[in-house]
Amino acid sequence: MVAMFEKSPPVPLEEFVRIDYRDLMDFVTEVFIRLGASREDAGIVADVLVTADLCGISSHGVQRLKSYYYEKVKSGVIKVDAKLETICEGPSYALLDANHGLGHPAAYKAMKLAIEKARETGIAIVCVRNSSHYGIAGYYALMAAREDMIGISMTNTMPYVAHTGAVGRTIGTNPIAFSAPALSEPPFLLDMATSVVPIGKIQMAVRLGKKIPLGWGIDSEGNLTDDPVKIVENGALLPLGGLGELLGGHKGYGLSLMVDILCGVLSGSGFGGFIERNTIGHTMMAIDISKFMPVEEFKQRMEKLKNYLKNSRVHPEIGKIWIHGEKSYLTMQTRKKIGVPVHKTVMKEMEEIAEELGIEVEWLK
Amino acid sequence: MVAMFEKSPPVPLEEFVRIDYRDLMDFVTEVFIRLGASREDAGIVADVLVTADLCGISSHGVQRLKSYYYEKVKSGVIKVDAKLETICEGPSYALLDANHGLGHPAAYKAMKLAIEKARETGIAIVCVRNSSHYGIAGYYALMAAREDMIGISMTNTMPYVAHTGAVGRTIGTNPIAFSAPALSEPPFLLDMATSVVPIGKIQMAVRLGKKIPLGWGIDSEGNLTDDPVKIVENGALLPLGGLGELLGGHKGYGLSLMVDILCGVLSGSGFGGFIERNTIGHTMMAIDISKFMPVEEFKQRMEKLKNYLKNSRVHPEIGKIWIHGEKSYLTMQTRKKIGVPVHKTVMKEMEEIAEELGIEVEWLK
Repeated sequence: MVAMFEKSPPVPLEEFVRIDYRDLMDFVTEVFIRLGASREDAGIVADVLVTADLCGISSHGVQRLKSYYYEKVKSGVIKVDAKLETICEGPSYALLDANHGLGHPAAYKAMKLAIEKARETGIAIVCVRNSSHYGIAGYYALMAAREDMIGISMTNTMPYVAHTGAVGRTIGTNPIAFSAPALSEPPFLLDMATSVVPIGKIQMAVRLGKKIPLGWGIDSEGNLTDDPVKIVENGALLPLGGLGELLGGHKGYGLSLMVDILCGVLSGSGFGGFIERNTIGHTMMAIDISKFMPVEEFKQRMEKLKNYLKNSRVHPEIGKIWIHGEKSYLTMQTRKKIGVPVHKTVMKEMEEIAEELGIEVEWLK
Repeated sequence: MVAMFEKSPPVPLEEFVRIDYRDLMDFVTEVFIRLGASREDAGIVADVLVTADLCGISSHGVQRLKSYYYEKVKSGVIKVDAKLETICEGPSYALLDANHGLGHPAAYKAMKLAIEKARETGIAIVCVRNSSHYGIAGYYALMAAREDMIGISMTNTMPYVAHTGAVGRTIGTNPIAFSAPALSEPPFLLDMATSVVPIGKIQMAVRLGKKIPLGWGIDSEGNLTDDPVKIVENGALLPLGGLGELLGGHKGYGLSLMVDILCGVLSGSGFGGFIERNTIGHTMMAIDISKFMPVEEFKQRMEKLKNYLKNSRVHPEIGKIWIHGEKSYLTMQTRKKIGVPVHKTVMKEMEEIAEELGIEVEWLK
């Protein structure tokens, strides 16, 4: 039996309500259908959003439903009925144009296509241009791992990060996700912003009225700050490695550019500061493990790596060793049983959406 | 005219001698030929090693000739006449076995093959197993950029880094290099260890008797230390992001595992702690830009990105904005003119090698 575990438990707990994830999925699906999306696309958006909440990445879950998606669809920035177009295609690559549609279904279909092509040739890359925010990067990388492949998912984002040597928001948090199957659950899943933290963590701190650790971001003049409001208003996040080059800030900056080049420059989408909420680019890659060795052997080798990492000598002050994907997996088990914690302000936002769209929801009353 | 610029100028300068890079290349080539390598392979090793010195990555240059290569070949760990074998191959992938040979020619040929295959299918991945240290990762990524492709080069390494939550050396510094061509020189070139710094920087500090900044590594008990000797002896480097998770140490840890999975687990080579100096794995990837858009258009877009980054508001305390690849490029221009600085202890090592192999070298006397 899995012990109850929750990643980053939201504090204070009394400000949250537990909702069954199936109810949340049904609601989000219904919202997008009413907004004009196809049933399939609405289902994909709901699955990605609520999976984020299930995994404990609440920053990327339903707290974004209103501001990131609902309002953007209503204002016409995101076109829910846009056609996903194939611009060019070959044995191991494709370029798709989302035509300013929803990011989640575009990325989902891109990864499906990458998996299909990798099965033929060994590896494939599919880029999407003119898309919008696609939620958690890891969702799509995991799709490949579930098909016994290695999956890579990247997206560029609006600029929130100051690149090394600069002040102000100049480059994206541009996340990278990488997944590989193992013998035991869960698959390896790295899902990281190339900044110290994603912008969602700052937004969450603002929402909760909390201070943040020094080193996450800078104010408008380039000073380190523990006030999330100063970052959200005129400041910027820092690249992984922090301010300057001493501890490797130029590496996080470089990783962010790598993602921007693959998702934005190569795809013909927005990049750097030349990006809008509906000109975001994604890049999906899949590698067929079976071309290199029997999948079972690969999984055994992954298991050996996992056991090795878990059984290393533990740091006396840290006290525990985690492998990427574990926390999310355990949190998901817990939250599937006891529900997803949703902040009261988010409940209120969903109530308003339900009312505006005329959706009857028992648990929102 | 390019202004004279040198990346990380070695201090104190009086301990260094300037050597013409062509002399260094000839010498290193001759060393490997005498050791039994083919002329082609010896030339590749020399080019990679001396290019590191030219670029200002002295930690990866001729200072490693003796301990990393010469001694390892003499003791039979690295087999200079090993045959590079193709284990399996398909439209967009290949797996090569270096059979414990030199890493540089194996990686060079792997990238050549990846470029060839990508030209047909759009993207290709070539893994090498049972190889040895291949020098600077960026060398191979740049090969792709020079062919108007995007290049990715990775290798796993001996364990030098403590993964998040652990003490001791458990995972490699596992570098990632990524290169893309631009309109103006130089191409974009990210070349980074997934640790805060590569082990070479620590070795260099030990050699020079210098302290290091807090945050680069920990001692045998997991405490941060500024003494490079404590890291080299029983301590460990830290993953990019530092100690613990607060500033993203788990991200550097995850990137290191990503590289280990692609280079070690997938290739059938060593990984984690199960790795020897001759069971290292490399992974090369190439993406054919022309499949997505005209190369000229891509280069113009890269130029736009570079100009945007350079023209951002400069951080008052940092004072200058760099783009990845620039410093190395400028340092190379300078050092091609005035010579490569070689530390006197390294000169001494080369003298001994020359004597042992009976190589007559004018500038070593």
